[in-house]
Amino acid sequence: MTTTVKEIAARARVASRALARLSNNARNEVLLAVADGLEAAAAEIVSANAIDCAAAEKEVAAGKMSAAMLKRLRVSNAGVREMALRVRDVTRLPDPLGRKLGATELDDGLLLVKESCALGVIGIVFESRPEVISQVASLTLKTSNAVIMKGGSESAHTNEVIVNVWRKALEPFPAVPADAVQMLRTREEFAELLTMDRDVDMIVPRGSYELVHYVMQNSRIPVLGHGEGVCHVYVDRAADLEKALLVTFDSKVQYPAVCNAAETLLVDEAIAAKFLPPMMARFSEAKVEVRGCPKTLAVLEASGGYIAALKSATEQDWRTEYSDLIISVKIVVGLDEAIEHINRYGSKHTDAIITEDAGAAERFLNEVDSAGVYHNASTRFADGYRYGLGAEIGISNGKVHARGPVGLEGLTTYKWKLRGHGDVVADYASGKKSFKHRVIQ
Amino acid sequence: MTTTVKEIAARARVASRALARLSNNARNEVLLAVADGLEAAAAEIVSANAIDCAAAEKEVAAGKMSAAMLKRLRVSNAGVREMALRVRDVTRLPDPLGRKLGATELDDGLLLVKESCALGVIGIVFESRPEVISQVASLTLKTSNAVIMKGGSESAHTNEVIVNVWRKALEPFPAVPADAVQMLRTREEFAELLTMDRDVDMIVPRGSYELVHYVMQNSRIPVLGHGEGVCHVYVDRAADLEKALLVTFDSKVQYPAVCNAAETLLVDEAIAAKFLPPMMARFSEAKVEVRGCPKTLAVLEASGGYIAALKSATEQDWRTEYSDLIISVKIVVGLDEAIEHINRYGSKHTDAIITEDAGAAERFLNEVDSAGVYHNASTRFADGYRYGLGAEIGISNGKVHARGPVGLEGLTTYKWKLRGHGDVVADYASGKKSFKHRVIQ
Repeated sequence: MTTTVKEIAARARVASRALARLSNNARNEVLLAVADGLEAAAAEIVSANAIDCAAAEKEVAAGKMSAAMLKRLRVSNAGVREMALRVRDVTRLPDPLGRKLGATELDDGLLLVKESCALGVIGIVFESRPEVISQVASLTLKTSNAVIMKGGSESAHTNEVIVNVWRKALEPFPAVPADAVQMLRTREEFAELLTMDRDVDMIVPRGSYELVHYVMQNSRIPVLGHGEGVCHVYVDRAADLEKALLVTFDSKVQYPAVCNAAETLLVDEAIAAKFLPPMMARFSEAKVEVRGCPKTLAVLEASGGYIAALKSATEQDWRTEYSDLIISVKIVVGLDEAIEHINRYGSKHTDAIITEDAGAAERFLNEVDSAGVYHNASTRFADGYRYGLGAEIGISNGKVHARGPVGLEGLTTYKWKLRGHGDVVADYASGKKSFKHRVIQ
Repeated sequence: MTTTVKEIAARARVASRALARLSNNARNEVLLAVADGLEAAAAEIVSANAIDCAAAEKEVAAGKMSAAMLKRLRVSNAGVREMALRVRDVTRLPDPLGRKLGATELDDGLLLVKESCALGVIGIVFESRPEVISQVASLTLKTSNAVIMKGGSESAHTNEVIVNVWRKALEPFPAVPADAVQMLRTREEFAELLTMDRDVDMIVPRGSYELVHYVMQNSRIPVLGHGEGVCHVYVDRAADLEKALLVTFDSKVQYPAVCNAAETLLVDEAIAAKFLPPMMARFSEAKVEVRGCPKTLAVLEASGGYIAALKSATEQDWRTEYSDLIISVKIVVGLDEAIEHINRYGSKHTDAIITEDAGAAERFLNEVDSAGVYHNASTRFADGYRYGLGAEIGISNGKVHARGPVGLEGLTTYKWKLRGHGDVVADYASGKKSFKHRVIQ
């Protein structure tokens, strides 16, 4: 007998109601039990993972899977300990629920409180990395949300075991339904889930651009995520050259495969001849391929600097997330063109200006329409851990609900609690009473 | 030469960038000029409105338009003064932009600030009431958003004049582009706008259920609004009878046409025989049609109370927003069934419990999954003005971004501003430096 997606979603909703009744202590107690459960099941997880990895090795040998994907798939004993550690970390984060976001006494004895609460049911789809299960489930449980997950088929055995560890760890807690954590097995089931906007409150896609894009195009449920990370570094005429070299290099080279790495370098024409040659030398050393606009090529030729990997940039380059040791370079006439270029071609993720001109920096920070706007700092800082959020469910390029790195707060909403003593609107409509609106918080 | 929707959206985006540079004082100065402009154009607005009303009167005579719709369409001189007054009110609200929502020093001299900012471009569709233009445009201008509006064809002449007053009032301000306020003329244009998720940041539908539902089903842009208001009053066994009678009556009768009026009354079986007869007497006096569950009918029959308008409720009644002097009544076995009924049939708008039992009230407020959860107060309080938000763009039943009555805050998002001195992630990855995460705010 198969369980339908409709039933899975209904069970998640029921579970979410039960989760909403748990105190922060109760939620933490469950998470600690899960962490112990993961460690106890380490051998089982690793051996299930060995089956997935063996199959994946054949795929890699056949050229059907990248070596990088296989690497992300592998789970060692140390990896399981790390999973458990991360779950315990989440117990130390402050309670995200029941926070007073505002309070107003509308009139004597009529108190309105805006209070944070769980969203309800979260759907999540991810690829490869089996540790995502524990990472996500610990965040949803901490926020009293039920979660419905869909992992990649390449990690099916590992996922199955980890989800079972989670569900088994919940068993000793009568107040915590096992359906707080559920798993879908097929793509068709997940496609069906995306249409169920009355049953699921938010979808979080974690994976390739194609996956995220598919979800964004096909979901009737609000999606928290980012399709692309086309991040920029703009080196202004008033830049400190040493800072510009350091920050640009770090933004591109420190870890090029991730969304917060820079893809395009914009250089103020007033500083291009001074800045570009030493920058190109550093890129060349790090084997970064450079795709320059005509002015960039001209400046570098004039400087006599020869760079093996120098190519001409096309229009398409300004929109491309390379996720690799490639950078496009454009010379702009100043701050205005830089801002305009970023707002036109960027993905509203994270963009940085390098300058000692405080006025230029403020304009850039105010006028660039991105989740992260940085002055004299590497785009690579865009990350929930680095921001001090403690844990990260993902990074959002959207402007509604949550923006940039999203921690526990993005998995909550709020409700308005109004407490009175038989108060009626007729008294205010008739003029018998009038609102006092005393802001308490 | 017609302007395409694509061009209109592009102009709105350009205008939004200019608006983002305005100080709160500058935005208020513009709004005051608009208020003056509206008053100066009163005769022009009223005479354009007379044309719309004449056409509408024919529609009403032909049975194609409701008298209520004609009433909402009419704009008097006093109405124009009220519009101007409301615009001036908005200037007195605190600046919604540039608010520090959080600040953390990631490390010495590396300061991260989470700061509120404009969304960008807002689309709005509304029916009948021409005063919506000024109400909405004042809120979008105060939040530095550009707005693209689509009004009902029945108020086309009035809308045209009011929008022109707005655009003309912006002219003396070189920093404020007239395209901050634009108007679409046809349904086809609006349908096209709904697909432009890269150009428009949020859509606000204000009008009938059909309109809102159409927008929610067809928009690729996040929608702020509510499809339905199926609000409940639950009278608990521990209710104070007088409060229960007052609050239930107010929730249903004070203004039945609006979304925060109650549609269903749930009564704890333990108090039904005592509460229902006097409640029905009051409903009967106010000519409220009552549709009861079998138990309700039995209790009322047993009490000997005869109510002319008493009918049997069907399953469909529990899901129906009457927006009229009709109420469905169900007897439930207690708090659990009440909560379950509301979460199952409600629209997550606003629901109230009447009880003197503090524990029951807390459970209701925590477990009912609605934007507004009230204890001993009328559902009719769910309104931006009554909440003290100063002004209201709408009421949201969604759980993401904004919930319940939405004021200026719902028209903003935030960005993360990071200010450093050449900081790079490589130093933290190598262990040379480590994060301090000093929470400042």
